[in-house]
Amino acid sequence: MRKDFLINGIIENYERLKKESPLIQQITNFVSIHEQANITLAAGARPIMADCPVEFDDIIAQADALLLNIGTINDKRRDAILQANETARKYKVPVVLDPVGVGASSYVRELALELLESGNISIVKGNAGEIFSLVGIQLSEGVSGVDYVGEDIMELPAEELKKLPEFSRKYGLVTVITGEKDLLIDSENQLLCSNGVPLLAGITGSGCMAGSLLASYLAICADPLLAALTGISILCISAELAAREASGPGSFRILLHDRLASLEADEIRERLKFEFIELA
Amino acid sequence: MRKDFLINGIIENYERLKKESPLIQQITNFVSIHEQANITLAAGARPIMADCPVEFDDIIAQADALLLNIGTINDKRRDAILQANETARKYKVPVVLDPVGVGASSYVRELALELLESGNISIVKGNAGEIFSLVGIQLSEGVSGVDYVGEDIMELPAEELKKLPEFSRKYGLVTVITGEKDLLIDSENQLLCSNGVPLLAGITGSGCMAGSLLASYLAICADPLLAALTGISILCISAELAAREASGPGSFRILLHDRLASLEADEIRERLKFEFIELA
Amino acid sequence: MRKDFLINGIIENYERLKKESPLIQQITNFVSIHEQANITLAAGARPIMADCPVEFDDIIAQADALLLNIGTINDKRRDAILQANETARKYKVPVVLDPVGVGASSYVRELALELLESGNISIVKGNAGEIFSLVGIQLSEGVSGVDYVGEDIMELPAEELKKLPEFSRKYGLVTVITGEKDLLIDSENQLLCSNGVPLLAGITGSGCMAGSLLASYLAICADPLLAALTGISILCISAELAAREASGPGSFRILLHDRLASLEADEIRERLKFEFIELA
Repeated sequence: MRKDFLINGIIENYERLKKESPLIQQITNFVSIHEQANITLAAGARPIMADCPVEFDDIIAQADALLLNIGTINDKRRDAILQANETARKYKVPVVLDPVGVGASSYVRELALELLESGNISIVKGNAGEIFSLVGIQLSEGVSGVDYVGEDIMELPAEELKKLPEFSRKYGLVTVITGEKDLLIDSENQLLCSNGVPLLAGITGSGCMAGSLLASYLAICADPLLAALTGISILCISAELAAREASGPGSFRILLHDRLASLEADEIRERLKFEFIELA
Repeated sequence: MRKDFLINGIIENYERLKKESPLIQQITNFVSIHEQANITLAAGARPIMADCPVEFDDIIAQADALLLNIGTINDKRRDAILQANETARKYKVPVVLDPVGVGASSYVRELALELLESGNISIVKGNAGEIFSLVGIQLSEGVSGVDYVGEDIMELPAEELKKLPEFSRKYGLVTVITGEKDLLIDSENQLLCSNGVPLLAGITGSGCMAGSLLASYLAICADPLLAALTGISILCISAELAAREASGPGSFRILLHDRLASLEADEIRERLKFEFIELA
Repeated sequence: MRKDFLINGIIENYERLKKESPLIQQITNFVSIHEQANITLAAGARPIMADCPVEFDDIIAQADALLLNIGTINDKRRDAILQANETARKYKVPVVLDPVGVGASSYVRELALELLESGNISIVKGNAGEIFSLVGIQLSEGVSGVDYVGEDIMELPAEELKKLPEFSRKYGLVTVITGEKDLLIDSENQLLCSNGVPLLAGITGSGCMAGSLLASYLAICADPLLAALTGISILCISAELAAREASGPGSFRILLHDRLASLEADEIRERLKFEFIELA
């Protein structure tokens, strides 16, 4: 029942985004900014990628959601990101945080924690290395760079797993861990999504694009867990369809945009693969 | 007759650009910088995207045109853009201004007006929201973000429309308004171009690419109106051909480059759709 | 014999990169940063594009190679590049220098020479205009922009050609000159590579992508000449295969990633075209 409710919600969100076409303000890194603007358009929302603080008051007042992606950070961008977060609070614009590279650098980690402490983040999304670094879960191996693919999360000890819903509760947000499977965690529910293909890890910015989609669906959906589930599922189903036609990572990332722009409700319904799980 | 003159001029410009291969210095935003460099190459010109003022004297002295795109602006880029404009004046390099986001932020608007006041701009190009903001034309609805699609411009009251050729006269330039149809306005002539496809609005940076093409053709064509007409027409005709083959926005933006690189004179001639109109 | 050794080394490097998946830290320009991250992934390595000095100690300590690409430079990036170079020395991480635009601007030229003087660069790669500017070889014509295609290098006077191996000896590195053919020069050997297609010059960032591949192979191959030969050959062979399927520069740059990700050992062996030459 609950699952049917979510399935219908995903399909409604997919269609509503194209109709309502919300404005999504995105501060992001220079590597994937172009792909993120394009995937936002493909999904039906309108991207705006302003990163100058003097513009924030004008732009965030009009925005329907804010994405803060802290990859390729520096002092100036750090200040801009903090100010954008405060401006979003002022205008009650919901915020998604993508803590890119938080596992590889203490500078980035401190910024991410400061943003979480603001209490203003609705969804935080990262790979296992990034989220574990924020939550304080120890890994057997060191985490290097942005492409870490975690061990099977469910094999972690129960006392470590318990930290994840506690983290979501503490900061009042939905935590999304992306990987071969994707894990969505709020203080009460945990969902495991099994859509997706290995090629998603073979292109840069697939995680960043997920962030753009989370912000897009959060703009039109008051329930952050359903918004997150929609963004992850729509990206991964589109990737499955793109991978069938692609001859490698280049054509895959192009077809990903094509398929994401033109999913059918039945196609989504048939392909959706997620389940409720108990983390601890 | 005048129209035949323009048609032949467009085809000559398209072919001449590939032969003369001018150097086009472009200061632009980080979202579409890569697509702009590529579309410039596809058209036959040579892009250079230097944004550090200490390099301007060396580079602009050699450049054949300068594009100033003021998206993703900040204080440092603002200063760089103003200095590039002055350096272009010194070396008599013609300048195209793309006032991205000027309708959404007063900071950007002031910079755009300062550039216009310099008297150094040959072509200014934006969507209806951006240009109306500069010209001082009031819209019934608010303008939000960079993706505003204006109401049918011709339905505006005559006294508002009159402001457009006055604006072009005041600043001594050609004004280009892009949208479903594109409007080109100098102090004496007004052209309405009807080439193009909706998919152009479904990818990021199509307006920015138009700016790169306007600068490229301005480098080899002394008549800014004909240069602007060439850039807009070549982009839109290529888009029409790309859309026939594309399966969505991803493949469309790739095929756009393919088609733009290999138009035939007859293809251009057959597809060209523009007419002289009277604005007021 | 020596040639067979190199051929086998190229194929081994191609396969080993996919297995070892080293971390490649890249400081690069904003035009091609996205393509460079993607080509690094396509080859099998893991890109990280951090450009903030406070992160360097954390990240470069873990990196297996460092690429310094000095396109779209400014004061802040200049300082970051110099500091990254020093951090790489501290952690004994090998460095590739891509002196983009060094022929067009004295500011960039001075930075490149300072990096060379550090004695820390293993491979420097540029087009003829860039390398000649560093080496001090005079050209008959002026060099403009980044797209200079040099006259046939071998027609230069012997006393000019001699400067190339001397330059490599002085700085203890391999010099790579890209163009219609590619020239690889260390203090003892000179190799001329004839793979590649004209379309490589029709897309932006093909030289920058070569830099990313040189750094990737340098991370797993102790011999800088063989690493450079691998990077250049793999890129150019992939380009040959991509060009057969492409309908223009847009589809070419997509297919380039597809083909580079899936070369076969026999395909590489059959297509490889390089020879030892005597420069002077």
